[in-house]
Amino acid sequence: MSYKFIPNGTVTTPTGFKAAGAVGGVKPSNTTKRDIMMIASDTPCTAAGVFTQNLVKSSAVLLTKKHLENGTAQAVIANSGNANTCNADGMEKAEKMATLAATNLDIDPDDVIVASTGVIGQVLPIEPFEKAVPEIASAMSENGGSDAAEAIMTTDTVKKEAAVSVELSNKVITIGAIAKGSGMIHINMGTMLSFAATDAAISAEMLKSALEEAVDVSYNMVSVDGDTSTNDTLTIMANGAAGNEIITTRNADYAAFTEGLTALFKKMAKMLAADGEGATKLIVCRVNGAKTKSDAKGAAKAVICSSLVKAMIFGADANFGRVLCALGYSGCDIDISKVDVAFSSVSGRVEVCSNGAGIEFSEELAKKVLLEKEITIEVELNDGDGAAEGYGCDLTYDYVKINGDYRT
Amino acid sequence: MSYKFIPNGTVTTPTGFKAAGAVGGVKPSNTTKRDIMMIASDTPCTAAGVFTQNLVKSSAVLLTKKHLENGTAQAVIANSGNANTCNADGMEKAEKMATLAATNLDIDPDDVIVASTGVIGQVLPIEPFEKAVPEIASAMSENGGSDAAEAIMTTDTVKKEAAVSVELSNKVITIGAIAKGSGMIHINMGTMLSFAATDAAISAEMLKSALEEAVDVSYNMVSVDGDTSTNDTLTIMANGAAGNEIITTRNADYAAFTEGLTALFKKMAKMLAADGEGATKLIVCRVNGAKTKSDAKGAAKAVICSSLVKAMIFGADANFGRVLCALGYSGCDIDISKVDVAFSSVSGRVEVCSNGAGIEFSEELAKKVLLEKEITIEVELNDGDGAAEGYGCDLTYDYVKINGDYRT
Repeated sequence: MSYKFIPNGTVTTPTGFKAAGAVGGVKPSNTTKRDIMMIASDTPCTAAGVFTQNLVKSSAVLLTKKHLENGTAQAVIANSGNANTCNADGMEKAEKMATLAATNLDIDPDDVIVASTGVIGQVLPIEPFEKAVPEIASAMSENGGSDAAEAIMTTDTVKKEAAVSVELSNKVITIGAIAKGSGMIHINMGTMLSFAATDAAISAEMLKSALEEAVDVSYNMVSVDGDTSTNDTLTIMANGAAGNEIITTRNADYAAFTEGLTALFKKMAKMLAADGEGATKLIVCRVNGAKTKSDAKGAAKAVICSSLVKAMIFGADANFGRVLCALGYSGCDIDISKVDVAFSSVSGRVEVCSNGAGIEFSEELAKKVLLEKEITIEVELNDGDGAAEGYGCDLTYDYVKINGDYRT
Repeated sequence: MSYKFIPNGTVTTPTGFKAAGAVGGVKPSNTTKRDIMMIASDTPCTAAGVFTQNLVKSSAVLLTKKHLENGTAQAVIANSGNANTCNADGMEKAEKMATLAATNLDIDPDDVIVASTGVIGQVLPIEPFEKAVPEIASAMSENGGSDAAEAIMTTDTVKKEAAVSVELSNKVITIGAIAKGSGMIHINMGTMLSFAATDAAISAEMLKSALEEAVDVSYNMVSVDGDTSTNDTLTIMANGAAGNEIITTRNADYAAFTEGLTALFKKMAKMLAADGEGATKLIVCRVNGAKTKSDAKGAAKAVICSSLVKAMIFGADANFGRVLCALGYSGCDIDISKVDVAFSSVSGRVEVCSNGAGIEFSEELAKKVLLEKEITIEVELNDGDGAAEGYGCDLTYDYVKINGDYRT
């Protein structure tokens, strides 16, 4: 393991990145929370991104994809409070965001990553940006990562930010990231907004490859509610300020970089799941012994996506039949008669199912295990060596409350 | 239209069917609600069934599939309170249920349809059946359909039963059905327990064909929570007591029979959705103008399955972006820029989206429309003539409450 987490790390922890956020009032009712932010590198970066697979895409997503085609970027501008999706003038507004950022940061508009999150189908007002962007540009700071993390929060209750340092062959490099959840989150896409930055020197091609490897086992294994957002955007910029020998092939440095990036994204993914809308618990489903890696991933996803499993964890009820039920409809190649299931947490571990049939267990211990904040559902398929982890959260009254009247 | 609904119709409305239910105490805590029932025909029937596609299957499902291989059956025995799934001795218990029914009804055990619903992974006690089945056999009555409907209820709050009469070329025949919901219900299978009976004369092959046609647009278009049950069973028995000319080809009588069966199942499907766990509202998503019928079905399913759409309907909030979002991830071939969306109910109709973009609408009217008990989400894709309807329900605090501690 060649990486370690940096205490209080964020997206501006890597050398040469600055950020700031401001209260723009994108949603007129918001007059106190930061809702527009920028992140910028002192110098041009190689860059890569992954985006929603929803056919409905925010204009911000369409523009950013275009801007990243050449593998370079230098700044991010993002807002919460309005998704800039399903609007007649969305592309015009996204381009205006890029131009405002570029003008105030004195960079090329094509090097600006644009992202929006919030209500779908309402016209994005541009006045808040005209007012806030100059203010943000002059406040850009190496300590601004947290303010940027705040500015992209919607129903999130905590800021999501972290950073790792990674020892490459000749240098230590740093990767930082911020992200926002916390509803309309589902597997199989860049899930949510997240912006990462690194001072490593790495070619655009290798950066894209490392990003995709890391996403596959982290953000793409999170589900809050099974709804694929229209605005999912995850980008990374690498400015090379660490002075390492530039990574241009899949060498040992590439492997170390990707390992660190994966660890960072897994941590962020767990933060997203744990702060899912209304969530009180993080659910990790660890699947081992699958015929293939793909079967393991499918099985883990089915379990963490099941409304019945999620409600059962909320109620701390060891109703393991629901786990088997989800495995059974996962579409994966599973021999149910070989399946073992256990629940574990910091309070212990309880085996509840062996060879596909229920076994006697202590309800008292099960209750104790399931009352903790982070629950692992261990699924052993005893049928190969495919393994995977999925990240989800419980389904609670508050999820319903938050989403029953989201627009006001 | 050659069918009409019969007031207070149930599974014993067709000539020659009897039923009864009793309090068996399958779940020891139950001492008041009927939980074991039988339905029987005076004479042997042609029969057909569709079953869960979950890899995890109740022993009752496995046994019933075997019993229906020859296309004949004469009785149903079913219980609530225990799913007889994921138990070491499940098949033995299912066979014992069939034998008890057959002995007491004086029929062939191979002609018994067996079904169970309730908690997964707990051993099924056979004593309640030994006690209740003789009692039920002696109580069998032509008015017993409603008691049978009660006996299969779990978290259902209302009994689901209905019947239609259908004019064939030379006779009027009757089809009746009962069903239970109301959680772990999802598209793409026989969804839930439902037992239908008809006095029509129809070959086993044509009965199976009519059943599959009807299921495809009714029960298979219902979702409560996205979880595919392990016990889904839908069967139909036809005893020919109406004296019609037996249906052995896809003639006009077959078409009329299938039309009536489809109407019956659509009505039952809506009853299931409206009484989904915790539900306060029925959501119908009607999709028109799809490129293909399959795209229309996929689009309707995505909308009624979306947790965010479900929560929005609970909150009577016209956040139509969530409908577009669900269409976008449905996997169907949709040109989002052509999509129109409207909400309607007995209180009116409000158009909220045109050509894939939000339009101005009266929030007051939208609120009025969405506060009703049955909401239709109208989706016009303007891209062909594929049409479909999906049936779902809102997501509420009570769904979470019911499923947070289901076993007690």
